[in-house]
Order: sequence, then structure tokens, then C-alpha cells
Amino acid sequence: MIKTDILIIGAGPTGLFAVFEAGLLQLKCHLIDALPQPGGQCSEIYPKKPIYDIPGFPEVLAGDLVDNLMEQIRPFQPTFTLGERANTIEKLEDGTFVVTTNKGTKHNAPIVAIAGGLGSFEPRKPLVPNLSKYEDKGVSYFIKDPEIYRDKRVLIAGGGDSALDWSIYLADIASEVTLVHRRNEFRGALDSVEKVQSLKNLGRINLITPAEVVALKGDDKLEAVVFNKSGDTEEEIIKQVDEFIPLFGLSPKLGPIGDWGLEIEKNAIKVDTFDYQTNIPGIYAIGDVNTYPGKLKLILCGFHEATLMCQSAYQRIFPNKKYVMKYTTVGGVSGFDGTKREAPKAVVKTID
Amino acid sequence: MIKTDILIIGAGPTGLFAVFEAGLLQLKCHLIDALPQPGGQCSEIYPKKPIYDIPGFPEVLAGDLVDNLMEQIRPFQPTFTLGERANTIEKLEDGTFVVTTNKGTKHNAPIVAIAGGLGSFEPRKPLVPNLSKYEDKGVSYFIKDPEIYRDKRVLIAGGGDSALDWSIYLADIASEVTLVHRRNEFRGALDSVEKVQSLKNLGRINLITPAEVVALKGDDKLEAVVFNKSGDTEEEIIKQVDEFIPLFGLSPKLGPIGDWGLEIEKNAIKVDTFDYQTNIPGIYAIGDVNTYPGKLKLILCGFHEATLMCQSAYQRIFPNKKYVMKYTTVGGVSGFDGTKREAPKAVVKTID
Repeated sequence: MIKTDILIIGAGPTGLFAVFEAGLLQLKCHLIDALPQPGGQCSEIYPKKPIYDIPGFPEVLAGDLVDNLMEQIRPFQPTFTLGERANTIEKLEDGTFVVTTNKGTKHNAPIVAIAGGLGSFEPRKPLVPNLSKYEDKGVSYFIKDPEIYRDKRVLIAGGGDSALDWSIYLADIASEVTLVHRRNEFRGALDSVEKVQSLKNLGRINLITPAEVVALKGDDKLEAVVFNKSGDTEEEIIKQVDEFIPLFGLSPKLGPIGDWGLEIEKNAIKVDTFDYQTNIPGIYAIGDVNTYPGKLKLILCGFHEATLMCQSAYQRIFPNKKYVMKYTTVGGVSGFDGTKREAPKAVVKTID
Repeated sequence: MIKTDILIIGAGPTGLFAVFEAGLLQLKCHLIDALPQPGGQCSEIYPKKPIYDIPGFPEVLAGDLVDNLMEQIRPFQPTFTLGERANTIEKLEDGTFVVTTNKGTKHNAPIVAIAGGLGSFEPRKPLVPNLSKYEDKGVSYFIKDPEIYRDKRVLIAGGGDSALDWSIYLADIASEVTLVHRRNEFRGALDSVEKVQSLKNLGRINLITPAEVVALKGDDKLEAVVFNKSGDTEEEIIKQVDEFIPLFGLSPKLGPIGDWGLEIEKNAIKVDTFDYQTNIPGIYAIGDVNTYPGKLKLILCGFHEATLMCQSAYQRIFPNKKYVMKYTTVGGVSGFDGTKREAPKAVVKTID
């Protein structure tokens, strides 16, 4: 059982910044995220896209914002359960919560902060018979660790940035990369489209378009993919592969959290703007996952919500302690790792 | 009469960021500040000090944060009335407001957003007879434009960072710099104290300690300062100078805004967290100047408040228009100066 002070569900920018504000209050955080890495949408969907409305950054790439936040919270040593979705919650007699993921990992904390964004990102799956039979046996929807594909024969399906970028990346790692798309046209960054074109010309990516995967073959694990090359003949082609990676985008789903007894309105969790607490005391919701009058789904609003949430969480954990807020410029930042960042102190010195 | 969409009182970080959010909604802003430059406390009190709790910045100097915000809002061409304090407000028949400063400058806008921080920073003045008689006639409490002191004989009083730093700066500009302090010890950055020591050793700063200014002389304008060098003799010394600059710190005062009919609680303006509007419709209060249940006086909270305020202001100005929020990553930022920042567009392109 993983124990922490604040269990944060969702490791997007809001969840990550909550670690910092909790850390200032000497509270420890653990984060659960369905994606294989921290950063939420910013890392998974648009890491190379600029954001213009983060205060103090005239322009920042989403991926860089996540890197900065990870650096900012490093002194507070957050821990993570990644690639798992928070499934169930139960309240113990001592008032703390136990959250269990789809893989059975259990987490215990007096405070749960849901920072789930638009929901956990679930891959859009192609309609292919027996697809689920091969999941984790040759079929995957995310690339958690590209090394898994080293010297393997990989078939990627899709026509967007993910399909293009992973085809390029795996061309250096896999023994063979095949990219299948139901149209001849790809939609993505100009760079990526041109790079795939040149890798195809060099024979390092097999491009098969327009075509659709229609069946999978294999006994214990995936052995071949059958695709239907549209056009004049409509013939079915069987290709021996080790790995099939359909990259048809992600679709956010509130998912099991919707059944936790929280008040939901328009697919978001209702909170009080005093402290962003839900109708269940001790469970908070911050960032895009919550709703209240005037709510805007902006990262900068999530930062504010995370900050007020931590103050309230502190009061719940230590009802009898009075916390006196100190500005970081005055008090510095004392990490759990023993680091201390602080402004250079003024000296009192005679001039003679 | 200066006309704008949102008149922002206070050009600290919160007021500055409001310009950006207003700009996204195509609303123009004008800012009034009692200080001679934008940035509020961050520029005036601690420009060289690091802040650690701005989301996405593991560390940022207060002055750099202000520079970044100025760069971020540049496309929206904000205008400023600096070095003047907002004194009075009146509501016209058309529902708009007129705000007049202590120097008589008039501003007209349908929306007023008070982002006044802890109040307008008023200089702490020494107790010297006739001090006010010489204000702007040889006595100043802020240095708005150092060039005013070129080739002048300047006497600075004070023992902190401002007194040290301006003595150093003016040593290159003024014909003579004298620094008077009531103790031998100065309190400031080690660098600054050491630099003053070396300029004193080089004869470029006259240092007179411990001493206090006790009288001013001159007919139409300041001609001499009398100071009392404490110690054995207690003799009074008269020194011919052109300029006397007492730098004894600033003290924030809510000031005339306190008489505008706004609901005040603990020296702050009460607002509704729905849109940070005060009890007077059309007047908002954002940042450290406001209060509500759970309020934290943090810059990052001001950013959130500014953002929600702008949405509400837009609805007040255009009650019949429905604004559809677009993410900057998707829609880019279109400046009033004709600039456009936007993410590189995806292409749709055949690979053959």
C-alpha cells in the first residue's frame, strides 16, 4: 500500500503544481496517471505546441512547461503510479481513503485531489475482431518504452502526428516499420510528413495506403496482421509482424471517477470555490475536471485552484495547527531532499 | 480624457496580466500607477529577489517576471498613466466611470479593475520642517528619471537598498553625491554595501554617518540641507545641494480608493469569487487588494482572478454577444499591433 499525504489523481500541469504548493506546507504527494508519463495532455497530445497564456511566458512549448514544473517540484520528491487508471475509492474507518487502480495498485491518503483534466485518456481503438485478445501480446495503444520494439517488425496504423512521429522514431529501432493509413493524405506537422516521405523513399518505412487493418492472427501472441488495401482489387494482404500499434488518437473519459458518488455536472465535478472541495469532505477536484460558476478550463486557473486546495488540505490534516503563510521570496523553499533555495540575505555592515 | 475598455488601477503583475486576458477578448486596457514604472512591488521593492512560486518558473527574479509580462502584453498595446495616484471616481449617466488622479488626469471606461496590491506605495517621509514646501523643488522621494540629477549636487538620506543603489547609480551622473544615514551600519545586498564602500574610498560618494537631516533652506527652491552629525559635538552642518532625496522606504496605503463606496474588510476590497466584482457593478478588484473566503495574497492567484474578471467585463460590455473561448494553442494570439502568434499549422499532405 502506497501511503502519502495528498493523493493526486492526474499528473497534468495542475496536479504537478499541487505538489509544489503541498510541499511548501510540508505535505507529501503521490500522483496516479493513466498515461505513461507526467504532463497530461501537454506531454501526450501537444508537447511541441506553444501555449501563449501561461502568465510570465510570452510563449512556452507545452512539453517545456511540463519540464519546468517537474523541475519546480523536484525538491518535494513526488512519487508516481503511471500507466494505471484510478478505478475505485473507499473510505476507511480512520477517515482516510484507499484508491485502487485498474492494475490493483493501492494508495492510502487522508486527502484525495482529483486533477484528472478532461478525464483519463483512453485510446480510440480500431474495430478489428479479437483486438483485445492481443492487448499486451503484440497490440499496444501507447508507446511507453520504445526499446520494447527494438529489432521487432512493427506495424503502425494511423494518419496523424502520433502515427507519423512514432514511425520516424521507430525506423531507427525496429527491424521493420510499416505504416498503414486509410487515406493517402496524412495530417500533421509539415516536418513530420516530409520526414516520413523521405524515409519511405529510402525504403526504411513501408507505406501502405489507402488500407485498413481488418484482422489479426496468432495463437498465444500476435503473429500477423491482415489488411485490406482499398482500390481496384480490394484484396486482403497478410503481413507477418511482431507488434501492431494503432494510433487513432485519445479520447478523454471521466471514467470510473464518475461513479465515486461525487456531484457531477456536464461531465465535470462540482466544487466549492472556497477550497475546491467536492461534496465528499476530503476529496477535492482541481483543474479542468471541476466546475463552478464562472469556471474556465485554463491551466492558469488550475494553478490557483491547486494552491487554495492545499491550504484547505493542510487544515483538514492538522485541524489544530495554525499555518502562517510565508512568501517564497522571504522564506525560501525547503525541499524534502534537504535542498534549500532562498533569496540572498541582506547584510548589516558598517561603511567606514 | 483618456478612454479605454478596462481601466486598471495598479500596474503590478496582476494588473499587467489582465491586459493579456482582456486582449484575447479584444478589449483595450489603460493602467494607472502611483509608482513611476510598471511592475508594482516587484519592480520597486524587490526587482532582484527571486520568487519561487510562480507556476512553471523554478526561480524567477521579480524584475524579470515583470519584463516577461510586459513582453507578453506588448501585442495588446496597453497605455499607462504612471507616477499618479487614482483619487476619485464618478459614474456618468451612460454607466461608464471617470477616474481622476491626484494630478488631475481623467480616464473614462465602462469597466474599472482595481489591481492596487497592498495599496499605492507612499514614501515614508522624514520629519523635517517645511519638507512639503520643497517637494518637486529639490525634494523627491522617488527617482523617476535619473537624468534629472545630471551634474547636480545630490544628497541622499537612508540606510537600505534604495539609498545604497541610487547612491551608486548617481555617482556616475551627479556632480556630487552625499549619503547621509543615522547609523554607521547599512542594511542591503552585500554587493551594494561593498560598492558604496569602494566609491567612498575613491572619493566619489561623500559618506556622512551617523547623521540626520534636520532642516532645509532655500527661497523658491532647495538650496541647502542642514544635518546634525551625532556624536561628541552634536554640531549642525549646512551643505549646499540642489537635490535632497530621502529614501526611507515605502508604505502601502489603500488611500482614496477606501472612500469609493466599496465594501472594505481588513483593509481589502470584498469581492465575489464568481467574477471578482465588488459591490459596485462594473468595478472589479483583483490581486492582493481584494478579499474573499479562502483568499491568499499570491501573484498566481491574481492571475486567475484577472482572467475571470475579463470574462465578466466582456459580458458587461457586450451583453448580447456570446464569446466562445478559444485556447491560445489553437487560436493563437492576435495583437492590436497587427502581430499574430500561433502554433505551426498541421498540413494535410499526400505521401506517395
